[in-house]
Amino acid sequence: MINVGIYGYGNLAKGVEKAILKNDDFNLVTIFTRRDPKDVKSVSGTVVNNIKELLNYKDKIDVLILCGGSLKDLPIQTPELVKNFNVIDSFDTHKDVKKHFYNVNKNALETKHVGMISVGWDPGLFSIERILLNSVLPDGKTYTFWGPGVSQGHSDAIRRIEHVKDARQYTIPLDEAQEDVRLGNLKDFTARQMHKRVCYVVVDDPKNQKQVEEDIKNMPNYFSDYNTEVNFISQEELNEKHKNLPHGGLVIRYGNTSNENNHVAEFKLKLDSNPEFTASIMIAYARAVYKMVKRGEFGAKTIADVSLKDLMKEDYDFILNNLI
Amino acid sequence: MINVGIYGYGNLAKGVEKAILKNDDFNLVTIFTRRDPKDVKSVSGTVVNNIKELLNYKDKIDVLILCGGSLKDLPIQTPELVKNFNVIDSFDTHKDVKKHFYNVNKNALETKHVGMISVGWDPGLFSIERILLNSVLPDGKTYTFWGPGVSQGHSDAIRRIEHVKDARQYTIPLDEAQEDVRLGNLKDFTARQMHKRVCYVVVDDPKNQKQVEEDIKNMPNYFSDYNTEVNFISQEELNEKHKNLPHGGLVIRYGNTSNENNHVAEFKLKLDSNPEFTASIMIAYARAVYKMVKRGEFGAKTIADVSLKDLMKEDYDFILNNLI
Repeated sequence: MINVGIYGYGNLAKGVEKAILKNDDFNLVTIFTRRDPKDVKSVSGTVVNNIKELLNYKDKIDVLILCGGSLKDLPIQTPELVKNFNVIDSFDTHKDVKKHFYNVNKNALETKHVGMISVGWDPGLFSIERILLNSVLPDGKTYTFWGPGVSQGHSDAIRRIEHVKDARQYTIPLDEAQEDVRLGNLKDFTARQMHKRVCYVVVDDPKNQKQVEEDIKNMPNYFSDYNTEVNFISQEELNEKHKNLPHGGLVIRYGNTSNENNHVAEFKLKLDSNPEFTASIMIAYARAVYKMVKRGEFGAKTIADVSLKDLMKEDYDFILNNLI
Repeated sequence: MINVGIYGYGNLAKGVEKAILKNDDFNLVTIFTRRDPKDVKSVSGTVVNNIKELLNYKDKIDVLILCGGSLKDLPIQTPELVKNFNVIDSFDTHKDVKKHFYNVNKNALETKHVGMISVGWDPGLFSIERILLNSVLPDGKTYTFWGPGVSQGHSDAIRRIEHVKDARQYTIPLDEAQEDVRLGNLKDFTARQMHKRVCYVVVDDPKNQKQVEEDIKNMPNYFSDYNTEVNFISQEELNEKHKNLPHGGLVIRYGNTSNENNHVAEFKLKLDSNPEFTASIMIAYARAVYKMVKRGEFGAKTIADVSLKDLMKEDYDFILNNLI
């Protein structure tokens, strides 16, 4: 049995609890929260501890699954927690992955732990496809499309606008750009050509709708570079129709092996729940962390360091018989 | 530079020559053939040797790329050649992979070589997707579809029928079964429900068409379990319209992480040239073989043993900066 703990209790952590139910070689020891444990009820009935109890569990946990956010939590938590635990996180700020890696690596090597970072579907499964396709088809170009799905970062950005009570933003990949890639029209697409943004917004008073719509559409980085559609709805409708967190996306690489022969490879995900699927991936990679620790392969790791057999509960003969 | 040799000179070997042009960390030292080298002209102008010269190259070749067939060549060649060389093959008889693995493993371990087997797109990239998706979504079901593309085994089977002068067989995956999987109708499809077979056949005399069509459609294993379409054409038309070897296929897994949430993952290939793409994959994995040898990780290997970073020419920071 692989004994794991959860650090931080939100949507992702609840997904981890569910993922453990699907992987019978895992045992969830405890959940750590910054809140008063009395106020936190775990989905699986697992004992909840305040984070001040953490070090009492140092020898009882093989891998600590970090479920905090990439903006404020993980840049601090992962390098700190890896001093005492083998950890795995889903750090997803692409531009800061390298910095995060070396922060974790230093402390992991000094204390002989494994710290696996950026495990999810992007970064994560999509990174695997980007590396793999780049390697096997070196003369080509890769495109990543996201959605259709809820972007929590963009939804949060709308909620910070004055007069907005609640909001949900869907990122929609555009078919035309995908078709271009499949046909070998390997353009440098603009952001606007690859995705559009569809927003469902609740405002305090209908008279503010015009102003809010302008504020959204003109928001730099988040919306101004895209065709953005803004729909105003009631809180009831938002709660009813937009309570889930579906997501997905597509990695496509088009390339050639000679002047005559072109090839297209695509990896596509359609997910009912972004946090549950991310959590399920983290559990498979927590198994790899456990095996790396047993072999003494310490330091920071990403999905690029993992061999596929380490993801499996079953033995190598099972892979040879059934999956190769 | 990674110095490689090619063993056996057919379509796959010509693909390897082209793949090396796309990977500037590789150097093709020589090509070995069973024929008289004077009769073999290499596409890239590389020196061709008879196989009796093989052992003279023992210290000049880092990885020997085996380009023989799975039926008669590789089961003998790979275990034998791994005694003197690090080798890679594309052995693709799924049911015999395990036996082949252990045959290669014994000799590879005894002589301290790496023998990587079954590298291509299926087995190979499709195996990666089956292992990966099985791991990250354990409660689900995986389906593999092949085509549209030329099956060389089925084309050969038709050519062995009396009165047949030439033939090309296309395997076509059926949309309806794929849609069923995407919708979560996880049936145990029959062979007939997943693929159909379309044949283009040249006969010696039109009067034999009826007999040949019956012989094809009733052939056990190859055709009798499928809806098979037989088209008779002239040798000229076959040469003109069916000279290429396109292929492709699809791995789909449908699974759930809880009662509420289902997920669909798909990996799809559309290839202009089956042998060129297979060869290109083999070169990326030959790089991994080279790195494994340097680290002293001897024995038989499959794609399940390889970590992605070993496929890349570029260093780890390149991966962190660009691909994760």
